[in-house]
Amino acid sequence: MEKVKIALLGLGNVGSGVWKIFNTNKNEVSRRSGCEVEIAKVLVRDKFKQRKVDVPPDMLTTNPDDIFKDESIKIVAELIGGIDPAKEYILRAMRSKKHVVTANKMLLATSGEELFKTAEEEDVYFYYEASVGGGIPIIREINESLTANKIMEIVGILNGTTNYILSKMSKEHMDFKAALDEAKEKGYAEADPTSDIEGYDPVYKLAIIASLSFGAKITVDDIYREGITKITPLDIKYACKFGYTIKLLSIGKVCPDGIELRVHPTMIPKAHPLSNVNDSFNAIYINGNAVGELMLYGKGAGDLPTGSAVVSDIISILRNNGSQYICTSLKNHMPHKKIKPLKENISQYYIRLSVIDMPGVLGEISTILGRNNVSILTVTQDVKSKHDVSLIFITHEAKEGDMQKSIDNIKKLTCINKVESIIRIENFNE
Amino acid sequence: MEKVKIALLGLGNVGSGVWKIFNTNKNEVSRRSGCEVEIAKVLVRDKFKQRKVDVPPDMLTTNPDDIFKDESIKIVAELIGGIDPAKEYILRAMRSKKHVVTANKMLLATSGEELFKTAEEEDVYFYYEASVGGGIPIIREINESLTANKIMEIVGILNGTTNYILSKMSKEHMDFKAALDEAKEKGYAEADPTSDIEGYDPVYKLAIIASLSFGAKITVDDIYREGITKITPLDIKYACKFGYTIKLLSIGKVCPDGIELRVHPTMIPKAHPLSNVNDSFNAIYINGNAVGELMLYGKGAGDLPTGSAVVSDIISILRNNGSQYICTSLKNHMPHKKIKPLKENISQYYIRLSVIDMPGVLGEISTILGRNNVSILTVTQDVKSKHDVSLIFITHEAKEGDMQKSIDNIKKLTCINKVESIIRIENFNE
Repeated sequence: MEKVKIALLGLGNVGSGVWKIFNTNKNEVSRRSGCEVEIAKVLVRDKFKQRKVDVPPDMLTTNPDDIFKDESIKIVAELIGGIDPAKEYILRAMRSKKHVVTANKMLLATSGEELFKTAEEEDVYFYYEASVGGGIPIIREINESLTANKIMEIVGILNGTTNYILSKMSKEHMDFKAALDEAKEKGYAEADPTSDIEGYDPVYKLAIIASLSFGAKITVDDIYREGITKITPLDIKYACKFGYTIKLLSIGKVCPDGIELRVHPTMIPKAHPLSNVNDSFNAIYINGNAVGELMLYGKGAGDLPTGSAVVSDIISILRNNGSQYICTSLKNHMPHKKIKPLKENISQYYIRLSVIDMPGVLGEISTILGRNNVSILTVTQDVKSKHDVSLIFITHEAKEGDMQKSIDNIKKLTCINKVESIIRIENFNE
Repeated sequence: MEKVKIALLGLGNVGSGVWKIFNTNKNEVSRRSGCEVEIAKVLVRDKFKQRKVDVPPDMLTTNPDDIFKDESIKIVAELIGGIDPAKEYILRAMRSKKHVVTANKMLLATSGEELFKTAEEEDVYFYYEASVGGGIPIIREINESLTANKIMEIVGILNGTTNYILSKMSKEHMDFKAALDEAKEKGYAEADPTSDIEGYDPVYKLAIIASLSFGAKITVDDIYREGITKITPLDIKYACKFGYTIKLLSIGKVCPDGIELRVHPTMIPKAHPLSNVNDSFNAIYINGNAVGELMLYGKGAGDLPTGSAVVSDIISILRNNGSQYICTSLKNHMPHKKIKPLKENISQYYIRLSVIDMPGVLGEISTILGRNNVSILTVTQDVKSKHDVSLIFITHEAKEGDMQKSIDNIKKLTCINKVESIIRIENFNE
């Protein structure tokens, strides 16, 4: 059996998972790849740091040259994350004629074009299944399994941290802060959770899968982004009352007037399969014009699930040696397509206002909404005191721009204490 | 752009779907495959039959030689189904150095080894994504996306017809016959529904995916099979009462004492994701030792979903030209592994008996169960008349052999009218 040497860049969470898998599943890896894979070197910043896995000390190195200048190393797995030095390392690896596997969503979403161009020039493989959805094989699904389809819609729960927080808030009636603290405690949220809770992480992921699904250059700037920090237990309570669950969805849709791209908290019907995706699980719902509705569900993060994607990519490279995968390259050669401006999006809305109880309040608000073509489906009133009445509107479908204009005007009314929340509702009816 | 000629064998449901996709998604197919694909010939039995799609008459042929002797045709899609003449045609196509795509689960499950051996000898591709799960890309998932894993468990709802019938029985309280009639009317069940309702169809499918998942030669005879014809509205009512849904599951599990393989109606907890897979949808739940729990959900049948898998396979062949996929071959080179005998399986059971109301009945039955190591979790009694009392037992986990022995003894009791139902319960707790 052919022996192949590989190297890992980084030995954090994902790196440790990859190490464990190669050790635990040695037989599966050989059977599936037809090769005996040896991890020859692991690049780390500190050779003496305490690790979760027992890597022989002579395998660790702090010098990238030990990897890039070693011609016997055929594949490099970049598991450092972030832009710097990950990008430089990937480019160096490619220019040293090494195939590259990465889990780096941020780098792919922001520098994908350059990386794929280099991979093509150097004629090396560049695989990235682990960059979106952890262990869920969404990249291969789009790039290989659904190639017969025009993908019309892709809707994902792509961030495990926020899904954990929202699940806790829904099921245990916690507030955001308490749920975030618990997520940190359990290792689901990082010390600085901004990238997750403000929705940057799912934006990177959506940029990658939307680009592949729709065959278009899509950058992070094309995607509307809104995090979950403003979601309150009260909104969750009302969502439940109206038959909805609140999820942080990443939405990409092909519309006649352009591609819709947005990441924001969304109310979805309790009966929809995405509504039952709880805790740190991820799921991706796809609608293809041949395959119809399809959903993938699994662990979107964690050392072993993400490692599963990295190691499977390495096996694919070993197995496909000699063949060329076209179309798996991100953005490179992809055309720009029209992105639909957010204000053109059509959606139902949940609007919660705090108002002062005085005659004509509902009339004034309804008039403004009506004048802006936003028609009301239901109104619910909840009186806390004469000076603080909650008014909850569910609208019919309306244009985002019209809704925003209404809100701007509603804010100016003297009876309004505050516009507490605006949450989009997705009903998935075609 | 390179032009490639392909041929279809059969223009029934799936054949029509493939035809439609090539016509509707011409641009996607070119973009993804890098080729211009032309359907050159379509083999049919009757050139003059009314069809669902408008295929130019000169493209139709009743003579297989028009395809197998035409060297310009590179890929053949076998969409006839069944063994004869599909098998002969596939072998002829391979021997004529044509790549083959098939949707034929029965043929793969029964003659897979021979077909893969021939493909290997002739050095042609042989793809079969459409054979299991219709549009759900389960084959590629096992063969390529989860290669880093030791797959421990695979549990599927693999038959849309029976899932439609069970969904109707559960949600609309129909009896089996009425639900079957409706399924026939809607085109979900065939005129002779035996293969579906008796569980032959999911057995073929389980043989294929279990073989690939566990890397073992698995034949249909290795799989225990039980259909859904004996499920009554009463069983569904009790299942619901105890927090379960009844599904026809296809189960493959790696156990220390062999591989468990069985297709039978199963009670599963309502909270499990498989429980919410309704109507004609299929789903496959996989547990891999790295990726953890994963589920795929989608349309398991129908012209376009199945066509999506066939066309995506054709695109993969066009794109991978020159590479070799190892391990995708079914059974060929795979070792025999120990199959766990059914009587060794451990499960909870739901047992419904019709008994005569006389003193000591429960004691007699409980004694027999206890003597055979079957311990009772709950007993429910439902009195219709003095001569017909329903006794419903839910047992703790017990060996199938012990349960069967108990039932053989219980049957002999004078107080027993009938053993109405025995349904296994799957709790998915590891």
